[in-house]
Amino acid sequence: MTMQSREIQLKRRPVGAPVAEDFATVEQAVPPPGPGEVQVRNLWMAVDPAMRGRMSDAKSYVPPFALDTAMEGPAIGEVIVSNDPAFAPGDLVFSRLGWRQAFNAPGTALQHRDRQALPPQAYLCFAGMTGLTAYAGLIRIAELQPGDTVFVSAASGAVGSIACQIARNMGCKVIGSAGGPDKTAFLHDVLKVDAAIDYKAEPNLTKALAREVKAIGASGIDVYFDNVGGDHLQAALSLANDFARFAICGMISQYNVTDAPTVPRNLTMLMTKRIRMQGYIALDHMDLEAEMLERMTAWNQAGQMASAETVYDGIDKALDAFWGLFSGANIGRTMVRLG
Amino acid sequence: MTMQSREIQLKRRPVGAPVAEDFATVEQAVPPPGPGEVQVRNLWMAVDPAMRGRMSDAKSYVPPFALDTAMEGPAIGEVIVSNDPAFAPGDLVFSRLGWRQAFNAPGTALQHRDRQALPPQAYLCFAGMTGLTAYAGLIRIAELQPGDTVFVSAASGAVGSIACQIARNMGCKVIGSAGGPDKTAFLHDVLKVDAAIDYKAEPNLTKALAREVKAIGASGIDVYFDNVGGDHLQAALSLANDFARFAICGMISQYNVTDAPTVPRNLTMLMTKRIRMQGYIALDHMDLEAEMLERMTAWNQAGQMASAETVYDGIDKALDAFWGLFSGANIGRTMVRLG
Repeated sequence: MTMQSREIQLKRRPVGAPVAEDFATVEQAVPPPGPGEVQVRNLWMAVDPAMRGRMSDAKSYVPPFALDTAMEGPAIGEVIVSNDPAFAPGDLVFSRLGWRQAFNAPGTALQHRDRQALPPQAYLCFAGMTGLTAYAGLIRIAELQPGDTVFVSAASGAVGSIACQIARNMGCKVIGSAGGPDKTAFLHDVLKVDAAIDYKAEPNLTKALAREVKAIGASGIDVYFDNVGGDHLQAALSLANDFARFAICGMISQYNVTDAPTVPRNLTMLMTKRIRMQGYIALDHMDLEAEMLERMTAWNQAGQMASAETVYDGIDKALDAFWGLFSGANIGRTMVRLG
Repeated sequence: MTMQSREIQLKRRPVGAPVAEDFATVEQAVPPPGPGEVQVRNLWMAVDPAMRGRMSDAKSYVPPFALDTAMEGPAIGEVIVSNDPAFAPGDLVFSRLGWRQAFNAPGTALQHRDRQALPPQAYLCFAGMTGLTAYAGLIRIAELQPGDTVFVSAASGAVGSIACQIARNMGCKVIGSAGGPDKTAFLHDVLKVDAAIDYKAEPNLTKALAREVKAIGASGIDVYFDNVGGDHLQAALSLANDFARFAICGMISQYNVTDAPTVPRNLTMLMTKRIRMQGYIALDHMDLEAEMLERMTAWNQAGQMASAETVYDGIDKALDAFWGLFSGANIGRTMVRLG
């Protein structure tokens, strides 16, 4: 069958913050799939800040988006028609072909996902690369142990909200930091952290972290899951226990710093406290994916993995979802419901 | 037999830089040893910058030196008389009872050293804690592999000079940084590094490191052995290969920084390059001592472990040796020949 698909194309490369005129919504016909192809209707897509990088043509480890073409991004869909024996109508599939309602693609561009185990959008969130990022950082990089005290920055974000829950489910004490009372309420009420810091309300983050460490009866932090860098990293170094492990997942506070950074001032604590600090990217840890999926599924079925999503409805809201990433308003993973 | 021993006592706690009046040289009689005691004549002692800390009574993980008493420090001596069956006259022993020519102590304060395997002073240098510091940092913390490109800061110092040689002996390419032409000549001529940087002559250390990396045909550095921090750490981050390992042994550039540090500016490279950076202190790695001694002895016997020492003669020069640590003039381990 021929399907109609609305898609979001990049029309020109944004200078500074992207504006609506950089994009166009285009209606495409998706004909019956060719030999070896599969026709897919997308159910969900996700947006993330890294997409901004691909809108430019700067050199990076992922190629830039092509102009006058639908952008790419993680999507979960269902098979409508299949000319590949590995896929059947109704199958749930993951692809990188988001920003559109439907598409044809060779079977090699698709991966099966278990429809029974989890709701479809979970595969873009805690059971997707976002989940793997949190899981690999805590389990492999930081070697998380039950009983550890864990500090998570950007704790209400896509990765941070999962990191908080993994740590809590592993029997750790969790302190999360986020900006504003809505987000700290989310940390308490949904993620069930032991303590939450509203960093925007704290004149001195190190003192705030010291206060919360004391409040939960801990001696310091054993693991820091860093999305922020800067003053959060400085506070984590200050409150670290000996032999603490820091997983450096992001340093969002530093990306636009053009002057010399003024923090952290206390890197020498790496040595006095014998701290290990390690940067990583999830793509290097795909071998953990099956284990991660298994544990996430079990936690979800036990009611221990809350959905942490901000959902926009329909392809016409996909750019709004993307803008929302930068407004600071979104909580958890930012997703668009397409089907 | 009763021996005469000159010893250096701390008379008052220095304010700022220690001065001669803070110390006294005192002649003591060392009587025949009591029951269970051993009488030892020191052959060598070593001095290190950490002794400055123990002259103050600030809280630390080692207690301050007592006033009106001989200071302490690593020493190697020979047994003169023994009332402990574990020791016999002529035995070579290590103790923490430096800053004196002779002493009586219970056998528990002494450790045997093999007189045949190495010259006595080696046990204060590459076959002592200094050697273990370099060895543990490279082998365990940085997981050094043959073929790695290794950058060592303060490479002409006590620990750095041994780190350079371990790395070279392990089949690595070594770039050392030190201050001044005498020290870089030492790196080339004695330590046989592949490249040496005189950081005092370089307006931009990152550019200098990039130049030397290229000159030795490397793509970047795999291991950084950090004694310095600051701009050296920044240069190492800039030139690091993916998955580089940084052993943080010291950050001497940062100890007296009271303003916010301006370097490193590029900590985000931890993430993009997946760098692991780990602080450590040698005392946590005493389990490596036997292995370290065995390899150091083999390298020494093969002519592959050059002595890197600045030697002062006699107990009356011990304070000069200590001042020399802070003048920047000393190369390698600073030792005092006592016997």
